[in-house]
Amino acid sequence: MTERLVVIGGDAAGMSAASQAKRMRGDDLDVIAFERGTSTSYSACGIPYWIGGQVDSMDDLVARTPAEHRKNGIDVRVRHEVVELDLDARTVNVRDLEKGRNEQLGFDQVMIATGATPVRPPIDGLDGPDVFGVQTLDDGHAVLDRLTGRGKARKALVVGGGYIGIEMAEALLRRGLEVTLVDAAPAVMSTLDPDMGRLVQDAMIKMGIDVRVDAKVESLTRPTGGDAKVKVHTSDGDFDADIVVLGLGVRPNTELADHAGLPLGEHRGLLPDMRMRVPGADGVWAAGDCVEVINKITGRWSYVPLGTHANKQGRAAGTNIGGGYAIFPGVVGTAMSAVCDLEIARTGLRTAEAEEVGLQVVSQTVESTTRAGYYPGAAPLTVKVIAERSTGRLVGVQIIGREDAGKRIDAAAVAVWHGMTVAEVASLDLGYAPPFAPVWDPLLIAARKAAESLTRD
Amino acid sequence: MTERLVVIGGDAAGMSAASQAKRMRGDDLDVIAFERGTSTSYSACGIPYWIGGQVDSMDDLVARTPAEHRKNGIDVRVRHEVVELDLDARTVNVRDLEKGRNEQLGFDQVMIATGATPVRPPIDGLDGPDVFGVQTLDDGHAVLDRLTGRGKARKALVVGGGYIGIEMAEALLRRGLEVTLVDAAPAVMSTLDPDMGRLVQDAMIKMGIDVRVDAKVESLTRPTGGDAKVKVHTSDGDFDADIVVLGLGVRPNTELADHAGLPLGEHRGLLPDMRMRVPGADGVWAAGDCVEVINKITGRWSYVPLGTHANKQGRAAGTNIGGGYAIFPGVVGTAMSAVCDLEIARTGLRTAEAEEVGLQVVSQTVESTTRAGYYPGAAPLTVKVIAERSTGRLVGVQIIGREDAGKRIDAAAVAVWHGMTVAEVASLDLGYAPPFAPVWDPLLIAARKAAESLTRD
Repeated sequence: MTERLVVIGGDAAGMSAASQAKRMRGDDLDVIAFERGTSTSYSACGIPYWIGGQVDSMDDLVARTPAEHRKNGIDVRVRHEVVELDLDARTVNVRDLEKGRNEQLGFDQVMIATGATPVRPPIDGLDGPDVFGVQTLDDGHAVLDRLTGRGKARKALVVGGGYIGIEMAEALLRRGLEVTLVDAAPAVMSTLDPDMGRLVQDAMIKMGIDVRVDAKVESLTRPTGGDAKVKVHTSDGDFDADIVVLGLGVRPNTELADHAGLPLGEHRGLLPDMRMRVPGADGVWAAGDCVEVINKITGRWSYVPLGTHANKQGRAAGTNIGGGYAIFPGVVGTAMSAVCDLEIARTGLRTAEAEEVGLQVVSQTVESTTRAGYYPGAAPLTVKVIAERSTGRLVGVQIIGREDAGKRIDAAAVAVWHGMTVAEVASLDLGYAPPFAPVWDPLLIAARKAAESLTRD
Repeated sequence: MTERLVVIGGDAAGMSAASQAKRMRGDDLDVIAFERGTSTSYSACGIPYWIGGQVDSMDDLVARTPAEHRKNGIDVRVRHEVVELDLDARTVNVRDLEKGRNEQLGFDQVMIATGATPVRPPIDGLDGPDVFGVQTLDDGHAVLDRLTGRGKARKALVVGGGYIGIEMAEALLRRGLEVTLVDAAPAVMSTLDPDMGRLVQDAMIKMGIDVRVDAKVESLTRPTGGDAKVKVHTSDGDFDADIVVLGLGVRPNTELADHAGLPLGEHRGLLPDMRMRVPGADGVWAAGDCVEVINKITGRWSYVPLGTHANKQGRAAGTNIGGGYAIFPGVVGTAMSAVCDLEIARTGLRTAEAEEVGLQVVSQTVESTTRAGYYPGAAPLTVKVIAERSTGRLVGVQIIGREDAGKRIDAAAVAVWHGMTVAEVASLDLGYAPPFAPVWDPLLIAARKAAESLTRD
């Protein structure tokens, strides 16, 4: 008997699940995917590089268009928003946003992949048309429209110094705007320890971005007759801007699931099991930015909206819907970004996160180089290693450096995954040759120093 | 009571041990280090880059000179060769190579760090003055002398296509020589599977190196009156050369230890325990290119002469001599090299090595990119994953690619270290952002495909 799978949300998680399930079951499974926007399977993480000009066109960010999905037998309907999910009746109510009419549709299985929404705190004036989140390709278009043509923006203010904030600040600078970034925290990149975040901040200031930390946005006003469109009032003074970009992170887009009675976690994300089934709800799957994930170090739910997780989770869900077996075992908090030629990477817990779950930690930071010191192109690299004091277990690593620095986080991510002690990490057999690393790899030096500091205690 | 440590060999392993032990014990330990050559603590791995011109001067390759070591309280004696080690009398007989006289000296502890010697097979004519190994800085000087001035070499022949062979072939090409490389194996880089080795070979041919595989050197003759100095006769024809460079690997330099009655392994290396003590010989330590190492995958002794191991082993020995505790737990066979802009890396066992120890394996090779496909500078990357058929355990990974490809081996090295299955590797939390990786990291794709191939079996 043919089953019907309804997929809510046409980006990475939803379409990975749809594609994988369809590939495995063929005619045995009808797959209908609803997407509120106009694109499917796009790279949200690529939007800052499209705005910055490194990526030529929006089309480059689309891994698979609706037409390509249709060729694979998936009935994709863009500009369709699922407005109600009825788990008892096993129906969805879908609004065709073009035609303005609703339709009821039954399903056997449903995949919830509704993604995330930029955080927009309740600040006076933050709702204006000159304030942009950067989450969808449509958002990207809207920002780009403001950077071109007559009356184009000259001054930008970015609110928040996380991944999207710093990437957008650089993108706008590349487009020739004057850029101010305000962050309420004492340093940008609060996913790093503040001492590491300050290295990023210094690099941004050197690039010409006006970075204001410990600065809280209080309100936005739009005085008539001024030079700029918006005046942003902060605890560190007032700033003029023609365009305001939100970089305060995102939150799970789970209103639909919530109304359907599905339980949400403390970050308001769905809480699927390892096969991406929503517990207690038969035939209901969830994946991507609308779900929380287990952090393998703490064993606790956390919210880590990243394209790489969305793809893996979506594929795992699709394999399971398709009758196979696949799991998503959790994360260790690996993340990367770049500002100009600075590469920024982290894995595991930062110091504050470790302390929050009750871990006592020590840390060691070393300065080293990406290649043997004598080899041309050797670039500086800072590695911070965080270890549990009583056991020596590696709980986190942060790396900041130039070319070829960032992906070194991967070895640390695998070490954290296995709960290795820093003493054992120090004797790992990592790749060495003069063009690639000093004879003592920077990660190994930092781990060794951390191990030595524990012995001395 | 002050003890005396005699160190035999003044490069990475010996001087790391000497420095660490002296640092820990101070005046309590007399350290005398004998070095046959003229330099201490140099990077042998850097010699091809010095010859190739990427590194300006020999001095750049020296991490610490004899004078610097002396400042740290170590009595370094260069141009001194230990010619006899008497473990019963606890003495060494040392020949001063400058003055031509011998001295007897007692010790409480002795560190054997005699390094390695280039393999020089018994081929007629291979002993001539135009045939060079590349192991010491003096070797480097000798080669450079042949590349400059009147009558300088124009044609080079490199015997052997391993790490040193390919690096020297590139170095000589950079110096403007016509370079032929002959290798008896069916592909260069026999530390890789032949299909991966052929990618290296193709790149070398494109660079302009005449690569001859399946070609066995039979003899060298020196006809008078010819254009070139040497005629190299091989199973693939005769080649003229002004200079012949050996790239056939090295063997442990253990004659001294052998004469002292210390047991050697099947590769003729010493077999120290994890603290780098030579078992059964009190107060005798060994580290570096003169020892064998345990391969953590096979549990068997193997010979992996690499500077990074020598440094770690030497430091571990020094810590233990100093009264502390440190171990060298073994290797997983990680190694890297570069030819031109091609980065070459491996870890674990290659297919033939796995089969040799009785493992049945499957493999998967994927072509991917270093960055998101749409991001500028995304470069092709080939990843080969080898897994045990019955368990799915990852036993080896090989990576060939351009900029930013090689060090990706480290994550694989940590995964191999832990005996992860390819299914688990496929869900690792590796770093993702468009400038650094596709949303599915190439290693994860290869591991996933290997896992899928096992399920299908």
